[in-house]
Amino acid sequence: MADKKVYLDYTATTPVSPEVLDAMLPYFSEIYGNPSSVYSFSQASRAAIEKARAQVASALNAELNEIYFTSSGTEADNWALKGVLERMRNAGKGDELITTQIEHHAILHTAKYLEKINNFKVKYLPVDDCGRVRLEDLKAAVTDRTVLVSVMFANNEVGTIEPVGEIGAFCREHNILFHTDAVQAAAHLDIDVKALNIDLMSMSAHKMYGPKGVGALYIRNPIRFENFMHGGAQERGRRASTENIAGIVGFGAAMEILKSRLPEDAARMAKLRDKLIAGILARIPHAKLNGAEGNGRLPNNANFSFIGVEGETLLLDLDMKGICASTGSACSSESLDPSHVLLALGLTHEMAHGSLRFTLGRYTAEDDIDYVLDVLPEIVARRRAMSPLWEDYLKNLNK
Amino acid sequence: MADKKVYLDYTATTPVSPEVLDAMLPYFSEIYGNPSSVYSFSQASRAAIEKARAQVASALNAELNEIYFTSSGTEADNWALKGVLERMRNAGKGDELITTQIEHHAILHTAKYLEKINNFKVKYLPVDDCGRVRLEDLKAAVTDRTVLVSVMFANNEVGTIEPVGEIGAFCREHNILFHTDAVQAAAHLDIDVKALNIDLMSMSAHKMYGPKGVGALYIRNPIRFENFMHGGAQERGRRASTENIAGIVGFGAAMEILKSRLPEDAARMAKLRDKLIAGILARIPHAKLNGAEGNGRLPNNANFSFIGVEGETLLLDLDMKGICASTGSACSSESLDPSHVLLALGLTHEMAHGSLRFTLGRYTAEDDIDYVLDVLPEIVARRRAMSPLWEDYLKNLNK
Repeated sequence: MADKKVYLDYTATTPVSPEVLDAMLPYFSEIYGNPSSVYSFSQASRAAIEKARAQVASALNAELNEIYFTSSGTEADNWALKGVLERMRNAGKGDELITTQIEHHAILHTAKYLEKINNFKVKYLPVDDCGRVRLEDLKAAVTDRTVLVSVMFANNEVGTIEPVGEIGAFCREHNILFHTDAVQAAAHLDIDVKALNIDLMSMSAHKMYGPKGVGALYIRNPIRFENFMHGGAQERGRRASTENIAGIVGFGAAMEILKSRLPEDAARMAKLRDKLIAGILARIPHAKLNGAEGNGRLPNNANFSFIGVEGETLLLDLDMKGICASTGSACSSESLDPSHVLLALGLTHEMAHGSLRFTLGRYTAEDDIDYVLDVLPEIVARRRAMSPLWEDYLKNLNK
Repeated sequence: MADKKVYLDYTATTPVSPEVLDAMLPYFSEIYGNPSSVYSFSQASRAAIEKARAQVASALNAELNEIYFTSSGTEADNWALKGVLERMRNAGKGDELITTQIEHHAILHTAKYLEKINNFKVKYLPVDDCGRVRLEDLKAAVTDRTVLVSVMFANNEVGTIEPVGEIGAFCREHNILFHTDAVQAAAHLDIDVKALNIDLMSMSAHKMYGPKGVGALYIRNPIRFENFMHGGAQERGRRASTENIAGIVGFGAAMEILKSRLPEDAARMAKLRDKLIAGILARIPHAKLNGAEGNGRLPNNANFSFIGVEGETLLLDLDMKGICASTGSACSSESLDPSHVLLALGLTHEMAHGSLRFTLGRYTAEDDIDYVLDVLPEIVARRRAMSPLWEDYLKNLNK
């Protein structure tokens, strides 16, 4: 095993940054009062949560009371879909959700549950070969029963940025609520929920140098929705459970720091990403970049398919060299199915199985990229030399 | 404002103990790999979670794969009720829940939601004047549609311990699933889920010197249930969302430490509690202890009603003296309604409004108790002197 460690899986999760951890530390053992208690000791807990809420709201151009803290991006996604659909059906407004084939499983599996257990109607929009939803497909799918559209802001596997502004404008005009899963996008893009006509938006702290176990759902006022976590009166009666103060403080701090560094960090990452992409395409024959080019994808994402090689095998070889990468979503790595995202982009099962994702972050240095460019071509070549699939491919090429 | 601080609200929340925080710290910025990733860096994250699972399982005499980590006790309660009832109804087994009038809002409000939005049938058992459920009431309530009984292990407001073993045996015999909310009890009692015939049990870390934002649900094998948090394949496909590693590690450490200190800590607290109870009843006329006596209540709980005085007023006066206490559940403190628990015990609205809860913990010293006994009688006397209710009460007494 290599001594070197090159972490290029920032989309799976990020380390808590030192400033964020410093901000969190007092809230474990010193300022621990339950925010719902009435004595003055708890005032500091309440103030810390409201400061974090202001940090998150301000970063998104949202109002304070439009931000609800949750335990994760997954919870935010569950809440957005279940909370809106239940409410809308009960109000007699409709029962149809439109989403896409390339959503994170937190959306897809929630949608399947709503179909199967609760008899809602769900449509899954296709995407183009870069992973972009086409507005005309959305327009064609809408019916008078459609009450919610959920399209992710940017895809977690291939990094493709969706036409969120266009979808938001269309939904607002047609009086349909629009939710976007911004768990990845919020870590890299400047998002103005008002300008983009976003009604609900999910976020997660651990994708942006905050702690795991805390997320948020933005819900535009005065949208009405059913609660998801029932119990106490926390979060203005909308989300029960004693607040995870340290986690919430960490989220607020992470968001403020991220926002302050955003344009420079994104530009720096895009440059490194482009070096990685150009280097791989130049050094490895028959490598394919999955997803959109340039500004059409998140600045930190590079996703490739290497014909003739299993992505999982490459991951293990890279791991031996100290490089952390992914085949796609970390959340579905336990499954042997090829990526639903890559299949939706039109890749064959073979190509989808040969995918490899590198995602850059704040602590990625040019050295790291050079190291990957140094190591990966040989790994791919060696695996291809052992692969009957690659042999077949070459034979067909030479025909 | 007093310089002194006497924290007697351990039932609302506890500080993270120094050993627990030490155990957590490496998992924010050093060992941060996503447990679902395949590279070796993530092995340490997975191992940390499985160690914590073993710590929790071992403390309860449960199997490893019967412990599911959640974001809170509230989430565990939501999941237990919704997950079992949805599954049971879909399997055609029944649609009726039996619970009690004195549950935490995480159970009561979930039950109301299931009634209102999902058309399940719910029965709420009464309790005796100590807050204990009577087995004969449960027996009378059961029908062939009953699929789940949820009775808390010990009440959070008055500390009354429920006859969980008897209820468990009855339910097992009648093939009805039994869930217990042990969010409070698990911090003070030795719980053996097998011996007590418990099928599902909710717990929370921040009630036992662990962090806020993490809980667990014990689900006995091979019980089948619907997921609550839909998405990725975490927790063996049963609870989606990237694991809150630091929080889970903290929970495991907290549970192991708690268990190792349990009999001594509980005995020490019970002694201090009894001193507090005896002292208050001796020094304050017309004070009433709410809940059961001696071993019938949690070792750390003392709950009183003082006729003629509002509990909220006492809290503010105590706060001026540096004492943190509660009127009951912290989670419902934003409401002006009297405690649903005290009303269920048969208290009048007046008496319920006059309640005050002291809950002791690991760091409570005899000094703290002496200080309360020194300060509280004068506060109650002063407030009564200003109270028309007290005047009326005295007049009626003297008639």
